[in-house]
Amino acid sequence: MPEITHRTLGQRVSFGHGTAAAALRRETGRLDAHRLFVISGRPAVVSRLVGGSDAVVSWTEVVEHVPVGTAVRARGAAAEVGADCLVAIGGGSAIGLAKAVALTTALPIIAVPTTFAGSEATNVWGTTESNRKTTGVDDRVLPSAVIYDSELVVGLPVKTATASAFNALAHCVDSFWAPDADPVAALLAEEAIRSISGGLRRVTDRPGDVEGLQALQYGAYLAGVAFASAGSGMHHKICHALGGAFDLPHSATHATVLPYVLAYNLAAAPESRRRITAALGHPDALAAVDELLTLTEAPRTLRDCGMRADDIPAAAMSILPTIPSSNPRRVTLDTLTRLLEAAWAGIPPRELEEP
Amino acid sequence: MPEITHRTLGQRVSFGHGTAAAALRRETGRLDAHRLFVISGRPAVVSRLVGGSDAVVSWTEVVEHVPVGTAVRARGAAAEVGADCLVAIGGGSAIGLAKAVALTTALPIIAVPTTFAGSEATNVWGTTESNRKTTGVDDRVLPSAVIYDSELVVGLPVKTATASAFNALAHCVDSFWAPDADPVAALLAEEAIRSISGGLRRVTDRPGDVEGLQALQYGAYLAGVAFASAGSGMHHKICHALGGAFDLPHSATHATVLPYVLAYNLAAAPESRRRITAALGHPDALAAVDELLTLTEAPRTLRDCGMRADDIPAAAMSILPTIPSSNPRRVTLDTLTRLLEAAWAGIPPRELEEP
Repeated sequence: MPEITHRTLGQRVSFGHGTAAAALRRETGRLDAHRLFVISGRPAVVSRLVGGSDAVVSWTEVVEHVPVGTAVRARGAAAEVGADCLVAIGGGSAIGLAKAVALTTALPIIAVPTTFAGSEATNVWGTTESNRKTTGVDDRVLPSAVIYDSELVVGLPVKTATASAFNALAHCVDSFWAPDADPVAALLAEEAIRSISGGLRRVTDRPGDVEGLQALQYGAYLAGVAFASAGSGMHHKICHALGGAFDLPHSATHATVLPYVLAYNLAAAPESRRRITAALGHPDALAAVDELLTLTEAPRTLRDCGMRADDIPAAAMSILPTIPSSNPRRVTLDTLTRLLEAAWAGIPPRELEEP
Repeated sequence: MPEITHRTLGQRVSFGHGTAAAALRRETGRLDAHRLFVISGRPAVVSRLVGGSDAVVSWTEVVEHVPVGTAVRARGAAAEVGADCLVAIGGGSAIGLAKAVALTTALPIIAVPTTFAGSEATNVWGTTESNRKTTGVDDRVLPSAVIYDSELVVGLPVKTATASAFNALAHCVDSFWAPDADPVAALLAEEAIRSISGGLRRVTDRPGDVEGLQALQYGAYLAGVAFASAGSGMHHKICHALGGAFDLPHSATHATVLPYVLAYNLAAAPESRRRITAALGHPDALAAVDELLTLTEAPRTLRDCGMRADDIPAAAMSILPTIPSSNPRRVTLDTLTRLLEAAWAGIPPRELEEP
């Protein structure tokens, strides 16, 4: 065993169906919170979960990639009302904004995720300014409690749900070769892949299937935990750069890039290949991911995500220095450009495999 | 999925070989600690890891089950020297004493485990007074950093090592049916069983085998994490009561009781049986544990642990109300008495299986 360091983050996490309102009361009570600053773009859900309380101030300006301007305004508003707890109800953008507020205010966060992005299980924050995404790690942004309620995701459009689940799947895959990859993160990532791929099959077969949605929530949570310990690998470095610089949709970019990073790395990482393949419940990992992308009708090219071909050279230049040295296969400007070109045009990922 | 709550505890955990001294410097630096109160019954190890530093005060009175008197004296000594960090180097008793000191002083703990008891990964503390063990849960006693160094356990006598590993194995098994058992704890427990049983086979085959010892350390850590989230099940309720009331040796008691609790519960918990059996890498869980006990020459009866037959009725009476309602099979005074009698006399565990 090489020298390894594993990091666990202290959280209370609950899973249930129709349990969010009660769980929220329990967790705010535990924190002795009396002035909730609720960040959510979904007013109907907010009113159902915490409606009718004088103790609640609602913030509804939720924007993808957390623009710094939005974060500054939300911080000011939270301070003005004397908030003592942030409640984020929504996907990665709502939780991301709560993290940006907690970063400077040190207010505790209770996260009620309504997608499968997994940000709720990490101490990673990110903001965007002038098309540049800045990310960082700080324990103040880690939600102290996370509440998963499958009732809240029953109505999620299948396409939104599955795109978000691919984001979680990408967390898992990257956990195998990120800079701080370790056996515990791999174990959690493996279980998460099993749960997410099973959940995706159920949910695409029967939209709103509660067991399938719970499998996606459980997988998204574990994916986040694995990612929080392992750090960002090649896949996330690519997606964050593309998301920040070209304002591409977060989840769709993950779904598009994932098979290309997999194809690029798998042959150079036989043990990870074995575990990822087994967890996907399929004899061939690339075929399994391709099948899931087809089932979920996910976007398949960076072109469809809105990227211009002209932007590929600059993107490759900016991404290259961020690729971790832990990546199982060496990455050069040439191979990275080829990967982005393939992902842009929808060239079969297998063509990136080493001969 | 039923409603579940999982609790993760924030820690930094490192694994390595010959890395403890450097890791300890790194972790004390991270805590900005300048006055270490080092609790350890192993002066040679202490001197090797932190010797020659003025910043170190050594405490060597380490007693099993943490008598309250010892804890009170250690607390006084730590306060007197103005300690700003507790370093526990040793097994469950040294770490247990550090926890008892942290409980009232809130000093951070760095744990350097030299056995496989797993206490370092939990926020559970325990002290003993007048033959009664009091245990509690408090986040102040959770070590902020844990340093596993396989070099420190190379010289451990095989019998000590393996008895301690059985304690860890018991943590895993109980995690499947303890009051807060959940899928994450089961996943970690399963991996821990796999690692511990493999490690036990290597270490009994070749004493001091580094890979085997690292497997035991990795398993002991995961066992502790699983146990910390799942809580005490039937096995630990029995062992804690016996340890506290009759001053039985901790590890030996665990090794003795484990097959009886397994035999009692497994048939009533088919999914746990399937996972425990698979993780043991054997078609029959009871046979696998029996094999491991034989390999390790562990004590097989409570009589050999020093318990008197006359004490069984009182023990059963005191243990019965502590058995969690989550136990897969109902426990009555009669069945519990039969279990203790069987474990005392060494009657084959299978006789406790339900017809």
